[in-house]
Amino acid sequence: MTGRTARRRVLRVQAGNGAGAPREAGPRADLLAVEEPLEIRLNGAALTVTMRTPGDDIDLAAGFLAAEGVVASPGDIAGIRMCDENVADVTLAGGAAAAEGLRRNFLTTSACGVCGKDSIDAIRVRARYDVSADLVRVSPAVLASLPGRLREAQRVFASTGGLHAAGLFTAEGTLLALREDVGRHNAVDKLIGRALQDGHLPLAGRVLLVSGRTSFELAQKALVAGIPVLAAVSAPSSLAVELAEEAGMTLVGFLRGTTMNVYTGAHRLSV
Amino acid sequence: MTGRTARRRVLRVQAGNGAGAPREAGPRADLLAVEEPLEIRLNGAALTVTMRTPGDDIDLAAGFLAAEGVVASPGDIAGIRMCDENVADVTLAGGAAAAEGLRRNFLTTSACGVCGKDSIDAIRVRARYDVSADLVRVSPAVLASLPGRLREAQRVFASTGGLHAAGLFTAEGTLLALREDVGRHNAVDKLIGRALQDGHLPLAGRVLLVSGRTSFELAQKALVAGIPVLAAVSAPSSLAVELAEEAGMTLVGFLRGTTMNVYTGAHRLSV
Repeated sequence: MTGRTARRRVLRVQAGNGAGAPREAGPRADLLAVEEPLEIRLNGAALTVTMRTPGDDIDLAAGFLAAEGVVASPGDIAGIRMCDENVADVTLAGGAAAAEGLRRNFLTTSACGVCGKDSIDAIRVRARYDVSADLVRVSPAVLASLPGRLREAQRVFASTGGLHAAGLFTAEGTLLALREDVGRHNAVDKLIGRALQDGHLPLAGRVLLVSGRTSFELAQKALVAGIPVLAAVSAPSSLAVELAEEAGMTLVGFLRGTTMNVYTGAHRLSV
Repeated sequence: MTGRTARRRVLRVQAGNGAGAPREAGPRADLLAVEEPLEIRLNGAALTVTMRTPGDDIDLAAGFLAAEGVVASPGDIAGIRMCDENVADVTLAGGAAAAEGLRRNFLTTSACGVCGKDSIDAIRVRARYDVSADLVRVSPAVLASLPGRLREAQRVFASTGGLHAAGLFTAEGTLLALREDVGRHNAVDKLIGRALQDGHLPLAGRVLLVSGRTSFELAQKALVAGIPVLAAVSAPSSLAVELAEEAGMTLVGFLRGTTMNVYTGAHRLSV
């Protein structure tokens, strides 16, 4: 049960058109995206549970902790061990006492007790990198080509339709890494977690493409990893745009065919 | 800032086709789906923060607590008060001590310390209603008509492309309620939270349609509300199908045009 897809019998039904009676095309096999809980532990103590597609779980744990501001470089992590197929235990280099402090801080801020605008600040992880200083430029033609390149590289998506994808590209449009998951935030965590462990943060000059919409959370994850350009096939939320603008990140949405909407950081587009 | 959409200047860019130079269509106004944090409190103490589209926040708080198994009937809630535009405080009928017990239990299980298969059980909220006993039948023609009816009723979706929708229907296809949100789980929580406060749980004989994919979490929310038929425009995950099968719920996916995939509970389709 640790595969990314599961085969399942499904009944394909065709509704009648007008006077026609409904038809059953009969049972057939269908591929489903696997969803299972992953528990992430910090030095042995449970931190959180995320619903994810199995695979790259160690990267997911590392990326999740990076997005939460708990780790920032390979040296912060002493080791990550799968102690069960659905449990990743991260041992921090700082020792058990430091880990317990970070864990308590995480549990407190994820149910933070501040109102209104302050609440936004409380969930906004302090970014270590200044993406506004990133001088990379990307051509609209390269951006327009990315969704097609991502889809080509997605082995699983075509067969299940149930997986979100995140792709990391160079400014010239070369795909560096691709991750898929039932949760779009998990796909991004897996990508960034791998880069963190390889010592590649900040991801200066890179473009992150996500297959769905851009939420505040996704923009924040890109920002924490030092990615200057975030592009998406669908719409961003208001708060994703606010965060991108404040951070000096380029945010592109509705990347379809040859057109796109540039919400922030248009100076990086070599138009 | 409590509207569901926000107006924003956006640069529309057209990449060059082949030899053609890229063109800027220039700045124009675009509507974004608003995303802001909502803090949910239990008798004054912070429980969780969810990123949501403002609107129906009291319903969202009630529905969230119903899905978590904290409340099950209008009598369980003494009152829900917005103490800030982004903070909903739920006072439970059971009193402060009971609320604190439920709060501690929630915070513990959301970072639960159990492995593998047990972890699934830990996040599986005990359902109070037996949907397997629900004798409702739905015709494929009615099911096929639901996505169109939902889209017609969505005022916001057409203009932003950034909102998920959830619709509650009768078995004859009449739309009873519609909610939209940047988070699909929030749209379902808002729908169920309203029904709970109106004393309409269990939602026996009803059909819930979601605009995206069906995750374990969405199937669980439908199950807790006693909804026997869950339909989606896109794919379900493996764990959503497992839960629906175990509970005796009808799960339909890829509801597009006149065709659909029936994953579980096909006996309710009057083919």
